[in-house]
Amino acid sequence: MPRVMKALLVVCDGLADRPVGALGGRTPLEAARTPNLDALAERGITGIADPIAPGVRAGSDTSHLAILGYNPCEVYTGRGPFEAAGMGIELREGDIAWRCNFATVDENLVVKDRRAGRIEDTSRLIEALRSIQLEGVEVELASLAYRCALVFRGSGLSHRVSDTDPHATGVKVHPAQPLDDSAEARRTAQLLEEFTRRAHEVLREHEVNRERRERNLPPANYLLTRGAGVVPRLESFSSKYGMRGACIATTAIIKGIARLAGMEVLEAERDYTARARQALRSLEEVDFLLMNIKEADEAGHDHSPERKVEVIEAIDAMMGEFMEFARENYLVVMSDHTTPCSVGDHTGDVVPVLISGPEVRSDGVASFSERACAAGGLGRIRGMDIMPILLDLLNRTEKFGA
Amino acid sequence: MPRVMKALLVVCDGLADRPVGALGGRTPLEAARTPNLDALAERGITGIADPIAPGVRAGSDTSHLAILGYNPCEVYTGRGPFEAAGMGIELREGDIAWRCNFATVDENLVVKDRRAGRIEDTSRLIEALRSIQLEGVEVELASLAYRCALVFRGSGLSHRVSDTDPHATGVKVHPAQPLDDSAEARRTAQLLEEFTRRAHEVLREHEVNRERRERNLPPANYLLTRGAGVVPRLESFSSKYGMRGACIATTAIIKGIARLAGMEVLEAERDYTARARQALRSLEEVDFLLMNIKEADEAGHDHSPERKVEVIEAIDAMMGEFMEFARENYLVVMSDHTTPCSVGDHTGDVVPVLISGPEVRSDGVASFSERACAAGGLGRIRGMDIMPILLDLLNRTEKFGA
Repeated sequence: MPRVMKALLVVCDGLADRPVGALGGRTPLEAARTPNLDALAERGITGIADPIAPGVRAGSDTSHLAILGYNPCEVYTGRGPFEAAGMGIELREGDIAWRCNFATVDENLVVKDRRAGRIEDTSRLIEALRSIQLEGVEVELASLAYRCALVFRGSGLSHRVSDTDPHATGVKVHPAQPLDDSAEARRTAQLLEEFTRRAHEVLREHEVNRERRERNLPPANYLLTRGAGVVPRLESFSSKYGMRGACIATTAIIKGIARLAGMEVLEAERDYTARARQALRSLEEVDFLLMNIKEADEAGHDHSPERKVEVIEAIDAMMGEFMEFARENYLVVMSDHTTPCSVGDHTGDVVPVLISGPEVRSDGVASFSERACAAGGLGRIRGMDIMPILLDLLNRTEKFGA
Repeated sequence: MPRVMKALLVVCDGLADRPVGALGGRTPLEAARTPNLDALAERGITGIADPIAPGVRAGSDTSHLAILGYNPCEVYTGRGPFEAAGMGIELREGDIAWRCNFATVDENLVVKDRRAGRIEDTSRLIEALRSIQLEGVEVELASLAYRCALVFRGSGLSHRVSDTDPHATGVKVHPAQPLDDSAEARRTAQLLEEFTRRAHEVLREHEVNRERRERNLPPANYLLTRGAGVVPRLESFSSKYGMRGACIATTAIIKGIARLAGMEVLEAERDYTARARQALRSLEEVDFLLMNIKEADEAGHDHSPERKVEVIEAIDAMMGEFMEFARENYLVVMSDHTTPCSVGDHTGDVVPVLISGPEVRSDGVASFSERACAAGGLGRIRGMDIMPILLDLLNRTEKFGA
């Protein structure tokens, strides 16, 4: 019986970029010194991938779903469920979930601060909100500082309701409105309106906010909701692939995707080297580990190519920990989407991919970058191709036919 | 009116491989001396193809279906129908077919030899089995040495029944069991059980087996069934493509696919050069010829890179016969799947493809191999793309639009 190989999938969030004038027309990945990534590319097979499909601007959520083999066009209706799962709420198929912000509004419901002064501890506020009862609906709540998740559970609900978050300050909060004519959407919008109104009553008078006003801090007196989605049925990762899977991530949404797929979620070590070792320790137990590294995306959103180069060099140093692992096992390194520093948001460009491991057809590409990988042996694939290709290399697929 | 061009599609079964340590990290195709294939690559356009889809481990049957433009996900339920057609049984849509082995079992139905000592002549046994009548079902049988095909024809049948072949010796034959709750599956399993039991009674006492026992040869006293499938409706090759098609193959399953597609099936000449000339003669009559060459796959299954190199060099010599043909007509050379010598079975890696002919956009790739073709002008395509691309080069497609 052949040795059981393991797989490590490193997704560098928003790593890919476009040519940057300030970097001499190079992308941050081309400008960064990346001896480990280049060595892995040289040993491995490389290519480019459309996270979803050509030109589609993927979110981190939809891209990670696709990369894990869950078709986002089928399972994704909004960000809410994945945020809620990432914050630790135990969800059931059909639940409606929102991501929310604790915000500050004035007496006319005009938004003054969408994050309530980035309030750090909202646990007592959440506790107070749990007293709100709605007819025929179970409500679940969780929070992480000013961020919060809200879940409605019950029959006759719909995710087709508009955001109450106006996504701007100086304007009034929006009413929750049904986005289609169904009875479910109308009922859910009414329930959300009722919940938001009563939440405002509870929060306005809460001791935490009285104290904040006394200290001249913006009170967390309103819950702005957005990203409504219905919790999908995701076949568990282990039943789908026959592998025990784990995830190391720092962002709630990636943790939420992993949790909804039934994967173990580890609290990421802060230091990259420590995190790499944590991954290797976990891989002694599990068959497959997804590691999401967030910081390159943040540099892209911040329009900072210099910062992105620094992050990439730190990621490259971290990859040094995996060089041995990738001789006897399979290591995939890729980006989940492009976040050009010039744009400051995700774009639909293809992303570079490398697969290193014992039996790949290495392709002569000796550096890991957007343009070098375009000449690689994988050609142009899609996010949803990653798992089938990896399973095949791991000798874990069934033959179709004879 | 332009000259009518012909097309020759050479599928080298299991040709593609992974890098082999004993060949200095080259694949057998890279290690072999292949001046003709390289010259065809240089004149032609090259690329890589997923036989079915990325990472999918194709069988020869599902891959050939896809390459001929029949979606295996729609038409393939099991190997039985293609084996049965390959053995010459005239099938009808909806027939249920199994591939079988004449096997040797002891008095407790424990399998002693899955091929009954590779018995060579089973024609009298088949004749005897034809006496078995089942209620409401027409039975068809054919055999080729120890291999056999069994067909049930009638209404209310299903292919959803388990193999009676335990795929091992020293264990008891398996009962035929329904694989779903349908009345059709239950009925078919019962009929198969009855047929198998009565076949055992007929075979046990047959004169052929009495003689074998006297000569100390294992008797062919049981029919082990596997690979149940329902005969699909395949639009005939000629109506689908407006071309007269023929096939030269040595394996029953490929012949069966060609027969079910209504193509002429020629008995392959044993010698490669003779077979190449046979193909060219056939192409004076028909528009399209599929030639399957089996031996590279066998070398892969046998874990023998050296043998695979030899086979590839023999195939290359054969290609010399087609160099002139490919100036005025189109020649496609590809593999139906990868059979790495390291694995000894099919894997889901991409396969190399070349198309040589008068009007291809030659791409600078001057050798035919897994890695060289990855840089080719076709990029990464799929098995089901081959016929549309070829038809277009042959000027045989309708314009979509104006």
